[in-house]
Amino acid sequence: MKTLEELREIIRNSISAIDFNRNPYELYEPISYILSLGGKRLRPALCLLACDMVNGNVDAAIETAIGIEIFHNFTLLHDDIMDKAEIRRGQPTVHTKWDDNVAILSGDTMMALAYEYIMQAPVGFRSKVFSVFNKTAIEVCEGQQYDMNFETRDDVSIEEYLNMIRLKTAVLVAGSLKIGAIIGDADELTVDKLYNFGENIGIAFQLKDDLLDVFSDVKKFGKVSGGDIVSNKKTYLYLKAFELASGDDLSLLTKLFSSKTVDAKEKVINVKEIYESLKIQQVTEAKIEFYYQRAKTCLDEIKLSQEKKAELVKYAESLKRRER
Amino acid sequence: MKTLEELREIIRNSISAIDFNRNPYELYEPISYILSLGGKRLRPALCLLACDMVNGNVDAAIETAIGIEIFHNFTLLHDDIMDKAEIRRGQPTVHTKWDDNVAILSGDTMMALAYEYIMQAPVGFRSKVFSVFNKTAIEVCEGQQYDMNFETRDDVSIEEYLNMIRLKTAVLVAGSLKIGAIIGDADELTVDKLYNFGENIGIAFQLKDDLLDVFSDVKKFGKVSGGDIVSNKKTYLYLKAFELASGDDLSLLTKLFSSKTVDAKEKVINVKEIYESLKIQQVTEAKIEFYYQRAKTCLDEIKLSQEKKAELVKYAESLKRRER
Repeated sequence: MKTLEELREIIRNSISAIDFNRNPYELYEPISYILSLGGKRLRPALCLLACDMVNGNVDAAIETAIGIEIFHNFTLLHDDIMDKAEIRRGQPTVHTKWDDNVAILSGDTMMALAYEYIMQAPVGFRSKVFSVFNKTAIEVCEGQQYDMNFETRDDVSIEEYLNMIRLKTAVLVAGSLKIGAIIGDADELTVDKLYNFGENIGIAFQLKDDLLDVFSDVKKFGKVSGGDIVSNKKTYLYLKAFELASGDDLSLLTKLFSSKTVDAKEKVINVKEIYESLKIQQVTEAKIEFYYQRAKTCLDEIKLSQEKKAELVKYAESLKRRER
Repeated sequence: MKTLEELREIIRNSISAIDFNRNPYELYEPISYILSLGGKRLRPALCLLACDMVNGNVDAAIETAIGIEIFHNFTLLHDDIMDKAEIRRGQPTVHTKWDDNVAILSGDTMMALAYEYIMQAPVGFRSKVFSVFNKTAIEVCEGQQYDMNFETRDDVSIEEYLNMIRLKTAVLVAGSLKIGAIIGDADELTVDKLYNFGENIGIAFQLKDDLLDVFSDVKKFGKVSGGDIVSNKKTYLYLKAFELASGDDLSLLTKLFSSKTVDAKEKVINVKEIYESLKIQQVTEAKIEFYYQRAKTCLDEIKLSQEKKAELVKYAESLKRRER
């Protein structure tokens, strides 16, 4: 069995080998650019890992895995327009480096290219792979819509939030594993359990992201903490704090998140203080542990040797422990 | 055999029957809206017509035909953002009625929905249908990119222009016919000839559009003529005029299309006068006739009875004669 890192390397090499020297240049240059910015190549590597785990032919899944990564980058490209994000992976976003129109159209083209690669799956698995991928693609769009809706709503429940991150983040991780298992010709139980593993680990991953944004070692996390607090983002921590706070804490929290004049640094310090008094870090860590355990149970139910599962267990643990 | 109008009616009914009452409402409402605005439903109807012509089972092509129409409307949705167009089919465009973000994300979702429908083609034809559709989808994006590039270029050749409208407009008409023929289990020659028919008729259609924008009976065309002149759009007429003009005509044309102060109405009148002296209308009509004849030759080469071809011949003639 290959390690996740070895599989990532396969993906990195395959993506660098794609020739985007096509016309019109103006359309393909931004696609080549965003794909060259790197990223963890996690989803396609997990796709290959699932295929490898179930004794499938990893080579047969490479094109499809690349399609998943192209799709993921397409969503980043369009999300960055919608979120007016200027930086992605330390570089200017496509709509900043070029403009919105370029980002819209290059994104659309990437979506079609993603399908092109996805459908290189071996003929016998193509319909199944397509169904999983397309359902996932639609769900990712739905997740992004919920995320945008939440910006202007002040009655978002924790349940709604968890469903949003499931759609926006987790289903693509889950779908990647499922597709890899399908191409590896795994039995239905294994395919489904890998999907559920991915869903739970994907939610845990996003909760950890929420946590690290507030409680992290700046040097290790690589960005100044508290960005979500400054932008009033309704994260798990935010929603949980409002659920648990009462009295003065609640008043102050409400004031901090509604004031337009409060200094950003001061706001982060004050909100963090309330989070600490409410033990939000511990509550969030417990929730992450909950999803991690659920993921692990899915893995336990798969009838494969521990050796086969080891790489995925290692990955799940690294997610939980990660500091950036 | 069914008439094109009967096939349109099938498409209209099938589209109205789609249930867009899905969550999140904010994502599906604009999709339902743009699909309810109508339009000629030409591409899906041609898809069904091709299937019917070759003695295929029309019912088996309906879902795929709807997918083509959803894709077409997705391109309109995103093009309207890029072109900052406010009106589509007499109603506010999606990005005007809602906003750019809604239009981007609903469009993305429509693209995934389009694939969902496209892939309802009968199992045996699915891979072929997908290939044709996906190639077409990428080409349509390329065509839109060329169109945007041309806005800021002043050395666009007529050949480049014809290739742009082929990609942006004609290949989807061609692909629709080809896909219908594939689902109808036609032989390769018929499939290819129907594609070529569509490509030629699609180019003729766009040239006719260019022509009608300048030389049309306002009452019949439904919009004030000369819009392309006012916006300096590099249409076939524009490019041909610059090719043919010399001396004073060329100077005036250059001046009219570069001045930022000239009155719109006056500009249209003056440009039309030059077009008339250069016989641009006749030249364009000859070019339309050229593509029409090429399309007709493709149809002649298909080994089917005249009766089977009659509806498509009628459609081609109506395109040539149309006044709106």
